[in-house]
Amino acid sequence: MVEGIYDLMILGTGPAGMAAAIYAGRYGLKTVIIGKLIGGATSYSGPIENYPGHIGSGVDLMKTFEKQAKEFGAVFVIGNVDKLAKAKSGFVAMVGDKKYEGKALITSLGSEHRKLGIPGEEKLSGKGVSYCATCDGNFFKGKTVAVIGGADAAAKSAIYLSDICKKVYISYRKGKMRAEPINLQNILSKKNIEIIYNSKPVEIIGDSKVNSLKLESSIGEKLTKDTLAVDGVFIEIGSTPSTEIFQELNLKTDEGGYIIIDRVGRTSVKGVYAAGDGAANPFKQTITATADGVLAAKAAYDFLKLGK
Amino acid sequence: MVEGIYDLMILGTGPAGMAAAIYAGRYGLKTVIIGKLIGGATSYSGPIENYPGHIGSGVDLMKTFEKQAKEFGAVFVIGNVDKLAKAKSGFVAMVGDKKYEGKALITSLGSEHRKLGIPGEEKLSGKGVSYCATCDGNFFKGKTVAVIGGADAAAKSAIYLSDICKKVYISYRKGKMRAEPINLQNILSKKNIEIIYNSKPVEIIGDSKVNSLKLESSIGEKLTKDTLAVDGVFIEIGSTPSTEIFQELNLKTDEGGYIIIDRVGRTSVKGVYAAGDGAANPFKQTITATADGVLAAKAAYDFLKLGK
Repeated sequence: MVEGIYDLMILGTGPAGMAAAIYAGRYGLKTVIIGKLIGGATSYSGPIENYPGHIGSGVDLMKTFEKQAKEFGAVFVIGNVDKLAKAKSGFVAMVGDKKYEGKALITSLGSEHRKLGIPGEEKLSGKGVSYCATCDGNFFKGKTVAVIGGADAAAKSAIYLSDICKKVYISYRKGKMRAEPINLQNILSKKNIEIIYNSKPVEIIGDSKVNSLKLESSIGEKLTKDTLAVDGVFIEIGSTPSTEIFQELNLKTDEGGYIIIDRVGRTSVKGVYAAGDGAANPFKQTITATADGVLAAKAAYDFLKLGK
Repeated sequence: MVEGIYDLMILGTGPAGMAAAIYAGRYGLKTVIIGKLIGGATSYSGPIENYPGHIGSGVDLMKTFEKQAKEFGAVFVIGNVDKLAKAKSGFVAMVGDKKYEGKALITSLGSEHRKLGIPGEEKLSGKGVSYCATCDGNFFKGKTVAVIGGADAAAKSAIYLSDICKKVYISYRKGKMRAEPINLQNILSKKNIEIIYNSKPVEIIGDSKVNSLKLESSIGEKLTKDTLAVDGVFIEIGSTPSTEIFQELNLKTDEGGYIIIDRVGRTSVKGVYAAGDGAANPFKQTITATADGVLAAKAAYDFLKLGK
C-alpha cells in the first residue's frame, strides 16, 4: 500500500481494471489499482466457459490477470474507496486514512446485485438468502433451493445448483425464460429443476435460517404451489452499477446509472475513463470488460503522454 | 468440410473469427468458420504478453480458441474463399468447388503485410526477405539481419531477433522510433541492435539469397552506412486489410479500406458483421479483436433470432 501520486489510478480490481493495469504497465505508466476483491464478479463465477483462451475457473483466470498486472509493475491496494474527488494532481481517492492520487483515472467498479426488497430478504441474508450460487451453493448440498429470476444468471445458477442440491425451483415472473438457448437446453435436461412461471416472491420465511419462500402469481391467477419449502433462496435478478462514489466528479450516466463512455472508454470528464460492468457498454461479459479495460488504458496513455 | 447452409458463416480463423464461433455455438447457431490459417496473425506472434489471462505463446492461445469453438460445435473449413456473393439464403462462399452458405456473415479476415516495393524484395522473398520475425527468425541464428520500420511491430521483431542473431540493424525513415515505451527501452538495452534513423531501403541485393541492403537518407543527408551486409531483411511496415473479397457485397470502408462497423460490429449491409484487423476499430490487439468477435456474434444472433 504505497500512498502517493501515480500516473494512473484504477478503481476496481475486476477483469476490466486489471486488464487496464496490464496495458498501463506496458505503456510505462506508474499505476495504482484499488479494489475490494481481486477478480470482481468473475472471481465467483465458478467455471468460466466463454472467455476465449481460458479453460478453467474464473478465480484462476483472475489470478493470471493479477500476476500479469503485477509483472508490469501495478501497485495493488485492497480496500474500499471512501471518497473520491478532483485534485490539483488530477484525482484523489481516500481508502481509510490512506491517500492515493492519479493524474488520470479509470473506473471499473462493476455493479452490485439487485435486491428483491421483500420481507425476510435482508434478515435472512447469509442465512439461506444468497446472491451468488457459485459462492454459496456448497452450503446446500442435498437440500432444496429456489432461484429467483429468468435471465442468464438465473439459468446458470440453477444449472450449477442442480448438481449439488436435491431439488431446484426457479421462480420467474414471466411465462418464458430469457436465458441463452444453450443454458435453457441444459435446464430442461435436468430432472431436478422445476420452473414456476408467472410467479413472484412475496416473502422469505424463516427465523435463524430460511424455511420457505412464499410466491404469488404475477398474472393474477392461482399458483399450483404458492409456498415452497426451501433451505436456500438465490436471488439472480440483475445488478445496478456501483457509481455512487463518482457523484463528486459529475460523470454523465444513462438512465440506468451506467457511466456513458465513447468507443475507447472516455467519459464526459477529461482524464476519466470507464470500463466494465459499471459502464454503459452493449454487452456485459468478462471478455468485453477486459477489452474495454485495455481501450481505457490506451486512452489514458494517449491523454497523459500525447495530451489527447 | 461439410457443405451446406449454416445460420452463421464466419470468414477468418483468427482470434476474432474463432471468438465469434465460440459465442455463436453457445447461442445454438449452426456455424461454419472458413480460413487459411488457424489463429491468423496471432499464431505467428511468438510469445504473447498482453493477452490478459494467458501466459505463453500465441500458437497455444489460438489452439485453445480452436478447441473451445469446436466444443461448441463450429465446423472448421481450412481454405481460401475464392468468391463471395449474396444469395437467397443470405450469403454464399466458394472455397474451390465447395459451396458454403450462411444466413448471416461475420468477416474477420484480418490484414496483409505491406510491401516496400523496391528491387529485390519480391525476388528474394523467402530467400532472406521475410515479413514475420517470429516465423523465420530461427533461420538466421548467429547471422546479421535488418528490420525495416519504426512502429511496435518493428521494435518487437528487432528485440526478438537480437536474441537469435549476431547483429540486428533497424532502418527507419524518421528520426525517432514510435514504438511502445517498454519496447523502446528493451531495444536500447540490447547491445547488438543498431538503429539507422532517417534512412530508407532502396534495394535488396542478392542472387539466390540476400547479401546486402542498400539504404538512402530520407532527409537528403549522407548516411554513415549506406550498404548493410545482411543475411536477412525483415519488413515490418504495417499492413492493409484483406477486403478484396467483399467487393460484391459493397460494404462501406474507410479511406484505408477497413470495413466500417458500429459499436457492436454491424456493417453497412444487413446481416453482415465485421471484427478484427480488417475492421475500422480503434486499437488492433488480439484482446480487442477477440471481444469484437464476441460482439459480432451477439449482433448476428440478435439479427437471426430476434430480427434486429
